[in-house]
Amino acid sequence: MTTELERLAGRLRAFARVRDWEQFHTPKNLAMALAGEVGELVAEFQWLTPEESAAPGPEASARIRAELADVTLYLVRLADVLGVDLVEAAEDKLDENDRRYDPGRYRGSARKAPPA
Amino acid sequence: MTTELERLAGRLRAFARVRDWEQFHTPKNLAMALAGEVGELVAEFQWLTPEESAAPGPEASARIRAELADVTLYLVRLADVLGVDLVEAAEDKLDENDRRYDPGRYRGSARKAPPA
Amino acid sequence: MTTELERLAGRLRAFARVRDWEQFHTPKNLAMALAGEVGELVAEFQWLTPEESAAPGPEASARIRAELADVTLYLVRLADVLGVDLVEAAEDKLDENDRRYDPGRYRGSARKAPPA
Amino acid sequence: MTTELERLAGRLRAFARVRDWEQFHTPKNLAMALAGEVGELVAEFQWLTPEESAAPGPEASARIRAELADVTLYLVRLADVLGVDLVEAAEDKLDENDRRYDPGRYRGSARKAPPA
Repeated sequence: MTTELERLAGRLRAFARVRDWEQFHTPKNLAMALAGEVGELVAEFQWLTPEESAAPGPEASARIRAELADVTLYLVRLADVLGVDLVEAAEDKLDENDRRYDPGRYRGSARKAPPA
Repeated sequence: MTTELERLAGRLRAFARVRDWEQFHTPKNLAMALAGEVGELVAEFQWLTPEESAAPGPEASARIRAELADVTLYLVRLADVLGVDLVEAAEDKLDENDRRYDPGRYRGSARKAPPA
Repeated sequence: MTTELERLAGRLRAFARVRDWEQFHTPKNLAMALAGEVGELVAEFQWLTPEESAAPGPEASARIRAELADVTLYLVRLADVLGVDLVEAAEDKLDENDRRYDPGRYRGSARKAPPA
Repeated sequence: MTTELERLAGRLRAFARVRDWEQFHTPKNLAMALAGEVGELVAEFQWLTPEESAAPGPEASARIRAELADVTLYLVRLADVLGVDLVEAAEDKLDENDRRYDPGRYRGSARKAPPA
């Protein structure tokens, strides 16, 4: 069964091929493009309070959704070019974080809080 | 049917809840955490030529996979907190890019090359 | 008269030359290195409230100062390699922002707030 | 004697004060704004080869100069709000790097190449 990310990676592969853009899609270049898009995403939240950031208005929400999309597209494309299964890698890392951050010890403390 | 990203988002939700970390997971904070991880990913490629970046050695490959995992975890968590379906948003954006970048006109030109 | 940034740029030039690292210091690579360091700087603030970020403890302050140093070093080196006078460029941009953001109209509003 | 960066920091202070923007200029927010601008700078180089990045055309050069200016403005503003002397911090870090990276041992090797 093809997963949703494999399907997306396949579309991105075709997208690059028909435009002869594979030459530009080295991991180095794609990592830069990803950083550029994440910069745009961060900029959406820079002047908001943490509380405001949780309830953006309709226009900001549309822009944020589009930035999340761009980040996803470059991340999926970068992983595909490198042959990395993103979900498998993420699940492995989360297993590791689950062992590393004992719920009792780290409860309510953001010190070195890992992804999640 | 639950997709692989929904499953991952569910695990991240539980991970945060049992540690009482939901208070730290505002979109503003998660966007910053995402930017920090993307910075680490970019650093892996900074001194490599584009060609070298396509064939990292085994140690670099393991580090890159772990950084891609961290980026994925924060991206999925951020989208979940905001209620955005990442794959749907990405597919929509790719549809738009498909219309916007005519294959004939943009063939082999990186000028304004979009994600993919 | 040599300014403090010209002196710093000169030291960085010598630093790279004696290690034969000029070959790695292309603008592309230096921009990536800058992004990596900014990622580390952002990570220092990611779980802090805006208020907490204004009064970091002694250990966090030392780390933040070191990250600001790394960002400055790469920024000065990148500008030097490109032949850009950072202070002149910044003054020009600030002149432009001064004209663009009328104090009366933008008073107290972060909407599109520019640098400073 | 007032240095060029102190003068710039002073202008930025006044710029924020007359617009009542000091409330937005917490270190957390300014670090995010810095990350956003560095993202735009990185995007200028993402599809260029390292060689091309060393010789951008006139239009790209103007954009790059403007992005370097934005990065400088936020960096100087952030350091000012935190009470950090950027040049002193950078000189200290460069002293440390000078000791840490023995020219003989690291000659021509980008492995762990530090800023410079």
